[in-house]
Amino acid sequence: MTQDIDGLMDATATGGGGEERHERRGRGAGSGRDARRAARARPKTAYAPYIVRRIPTFDVLSEEGLEIIEANAETILEEIGIDFRDDTEALDMWRDAGADVQGERVHIPRGLARKLIATAPATFTQHARNPERSVEIGGKATVFAPVYGPPFVRDLDGGRRYATIEDFRNFVKLAYQAPAMHHSGGTVCEPVDLPVNKRHLDMNYAHMRYSDKPFMGSVTHPLRALDTIEMAKILFGAEFLDQNTVITSLINANSPMVWDSTMLGALKNYARANQATIVTPFILAGAMSPVTVAGTLAQTLAESMAGMAFAQMCRPGAPVIFGSFASSISMQSGAPTFGTPEPALVLYACAQLARRLGVPFRSGGSLCGSKVPDAQAAFESANTLLPTVLAGVNFVLHAAGWLEGGLASSYEKFVMDADQLGMMKTMLEGVDLSENGQALDAIREVGPGAHFLGCAHTQANFETAFYRSSIADNNTYEQWLAEGERDAATRASVLVKRMLNEYEAPAIDPAVDEALLEFIAKKKASFPDSNI
Amino acid sequence: MTQDIDGLMDATATGGGGEERHERRGRGAGSGRDARRAARARPKTAYAPYIVRRIPTFDVLSEEGLEIIEANAETILEEIGIDFRDDTEALDMWRDAGADVQGERVHIPRGLARKLIATAPATFTQHARNPERSVEIGGKATVFAPVYGPPFVRDLDGGRRYATIEDFRNFVKLAYQAPAMHHSGGTVCEPVDLPVNKRHLDMNYAHMRYSDKPFMGSVTHPLRALDTIEMAKILFGAEFLDQNTVITSLINANSPMVWDSTMLGALKNYARANQATIVTPFILAGAMSPVTVAGTLAQTLAESMAGMAFAQMCRPGAPVIFGSFASSISMQSGAPTFGTPEPALVLYACAQLARRLGVPFRSGGSLCGSKVPDAQAAFESANTLLPTVLAGVNFVLHAAGWLEGGLASSYEKFVMDADQLGMMKTMLEGVDLSENGQALDAIREVGPGAHFLGCAHTQANFETAFYRSSIADNNTYEQWLAEGERDAATRASVLVKRMLNEYEAPAIDPAVDEALLEFIAKKKASFPDSNI
Repeated sequence: MTQDIDGLMDATATGGGGEERHERRGRGAGSGRDARRAARARPKTAYAPYIVRRIPTFDVLSEEGLEIIEANAETILEEIGIDFRDDTEALDMWRDAGADVQGERVHIPRGLARKLIATAPATFTQHARNPERSVEIGGKATVFAPVYGPPFVRDLDGGRRYATIEDFRNFVKLAYQAPAMHHSGGTVCEPVDLPVNKRHLDMNYAHMRYSDKPFMGSVTHPLRALDTIEMAKILFGAEFLDQNTVITSLINANSPMVWDSTMLGALKNYARANQATIVTPFILAGAMSPVTVAGTLAQTLAESMAGMAFAQMCRPGAPVIFGSFASSISMQSGAPTFGTPEPALVLYACAQLARRLGVPFRSGGSLCGSKVPDAQAAFESANTLLPTVLAGVNFVLHAAGWLEGGLASSYEKFVMDADQLGMMKTMLEGVDLSENGQALDAIREVGPGAHFLGCAHTQANFETAFYRSSIADNNTYEQWLAEGERDAATRASVLVKRMLNEYEAPAIDPAVDEALLEFIAKKKASFPDSNI
Repeated sequence: MTQDIDGLMDATATGGGGEERHERRGRGAGSGRDARRAARARPKTAYAPYIVRRIPTFDVLSEEGLEIIEANAETILEEIGIDFRDDTEALDMWRDAGADVQGERVHIPRGLARKLIATAPATFTQHARNPERSVEIGGKATVFAPVYGPPFVRDLDGGRRYATIEDFRNFVKLAYQAPAMHHSGGTVCEPVDLPVNKRHLDMNYAHMRYSDKPFMGSVTHPLRALDTIEMAKILFGAEFLDQNTVITSLINANSPMVWDSTMLGALKNYARANQATIVTPFILAGAMSPVTVAGTLAQTLAESMAGMAFAQMCRPGAPVIFGSFASSISMQSGAPTFGTPEPALVLYACAQLARRLGVPFRSGGSLCGSKVPDAQAAFESANTLLPTVLAGVNFVLHAAGWLEGGLASSYEKFVMDADQLGMMKTMLEGVDLSENGQALDAIREVGPGAHFLGCAHTQANFETAFYRSSIADNNTYEQWLAEGERDAATRASVLVKRMLNEYEAPAIDPAVDEALLEFIAKKKASFPDSNI
């Protein structure tokens, strides 16, 4: 009798996979045991600064469907119009470009936005201070960046509490250590213990000093964007910065169909300095867009096109990323929901629209609405992350640590998510069809009724054979019981502590470090603290 | 300032989605409130006996890659051969069909298996005793069936324990009630309180009496397959059964490259009675197949082709399903692992191979290795289920309830998984591109800076707008605290109890019921209990 369960019972009973089955058939398992013993050595894996996909993207919309959405977006731009609020310079620029400006409402003739966006690069390099960690954004590249924005943090020991600059540094350190994380991110949590008008200086410094991966800049005030650029000039040199992109920043629309002066001010400063902006309609469908996928798509495309076209007016050729943050709301309570199918459909289709526009795409991540890193959190995160990578998202914000609808950065979830990101890399690399991958000789060697644990091909490949999770427990039930019946969150908590304990800061030129600290001290002394 | 977090904080603070943002802009939210109040009424959704996909399948292998795998499978069949053990009839049949039989090893000339499989139907109907619940298997159809095989059950109250016939009936009842579950399954758990040689009678009866969805038959002995067919004749009529398929059964290979007499005996009985068999190599890659994806694919294809060809030799035209159960093992411990990227790649590629063969495909499910329904369980299940539906799997065994590598059927995970299955249905239905779906008039009506909560389009569509999870908690943090900080598993436990409490058996013709009970009583009395 062979039922699905057979091999598994053997495996959990003996810790030996399907081996026990074959012992019963009279085959020795010695070589298999050797292979397993040898396999306990850690695999050697090279650090990859970003992922280059080798599998296709998944497209949900047909050519005809895409054309409908694009036509509707042009109708929104031309007929309904987009507000550019409290920014007369922006309105003048749109008028000069040929738009019909009525008050603060900009009606963009069909085709104009797309024409302006044509100067944006299809892919660009965001440089890191460690050149080995510079990332490509666009094309077949996928870059993972941490959670962005939560005012709270949560961990198993301390529960939920307001975030501090100490938490901020901790998340920078975790992102620095996680091999599957390519980017240091931006507001990994909001350090509410520091004054609003100065905290960006300490946040920027944390990314620059405690990591050597690329990072995001402040967008909460146009002047804070300029501070970020000044600090980046100290780190990279002013000349390098004008010709290269070292900052990517998140510019969100005020959906539906509004760009406000704060975001426009930050966008202008970054674009004019040749730095990248992620032009993102932030949409809870049903509240900020129609309750349908196709309606949300057209509106997202229109809003993002208006923002990206404006960035190109600020500096033709400045890198822009088409961003989409789309969730749905509970029609019972109005609360945002995550991991449901409709946002996944938006995500797949938006990625197609971005490819047709010829610009990099940002969306998705490991989003969830759960308050704790439980099964709800994991289901919802996986239901967002898998579409994210299959859709071909180039820049994945919120790839790790997001909890509670983005209200909390979770320590445990950060390392759980980072484990998932490692899996995505393996998946995006696709099927190895080399002769070694085909493994016909292994099948010849082993033959019917035997096992592969000790065969030459297994011995030669076990180090890199399968993705090894840092969180999953695959031990026997008995061993799991003996180890205290720990769930995934509890194991993640242990890993967080080990990582923060083992953290070592990357080297930095002491003169540069001093100059950064001097800039910050001078800035802080030049105006009083404020929480506005 | 608009950062990603803004809308969410408003939502969690007010329970009103993005509404609060817009109130600040001076727009009233009364109509939105009305829409939400109305939305609290339950949506009316029609029961769908199975899913018909409207989105494409996701293909990881190119034409060239598929040809390599197919050529390697033919090499395995011809050169290495497949063992058909302890079944001289099978060996004679292979010899007659043109294979080179040496001892128990059958060498199948290139092309022969494919030629034999050509008589198998590309799709077929498995009839349920309630005709509205009959399912299509193959083509664009997706059918979800429960977990199969675990000797243990687990719930929050009782922990992990050996399964009983009472548990078996409970899982049949849960599957009957879950709107997203299309099939009653087979060994939803192994009722170890009943003798091995008679329990199939009670298991079959539970599916026939406590559900009216289609079910699977016993395969643990050829005679038990015949008992299943006899009972199905009572339920459906002997004539109907000969011309129609009312049983689908799981026939697993003893990988690598062995078919044993138990499985062959059951397969022969079902195929000759025109009943469907799922011909499945059960593979823990690294133990029962090479450690590579491409190697596992070729071996899986070869084994399944041999089994399906044999079924066609038993009765040309009998429905067969190409099955693949592929997991990987931990190279450290030899334990099976789930939700990792390599099995997902196997799954995508196998679905492509099945489509090229022109037969329905079974794979995937909600597989996990976790001992409890925690974040590990959810990540791993989602990492299996999403590839399952994107790949285009037609028959999804283990779609709900699978825990601990298939050692335990979990009550809580069953309802969690069933919730995910509902989401998959919405996703597979794709993007609504009707005029209502495009929602341009809604965007025109609302305009820049306002909100969609109360607009006419939202009012008209809120009932069916977004998938509503039965498990996820999207309430405010404060409400969640007040309700006892329950995690997903705890909420699932409440739902399980409510479902079992509210269960009502479907009607059955009393004469049929009596005949079934009489058959079972006579059978049980005709030979002594045994646990072999």
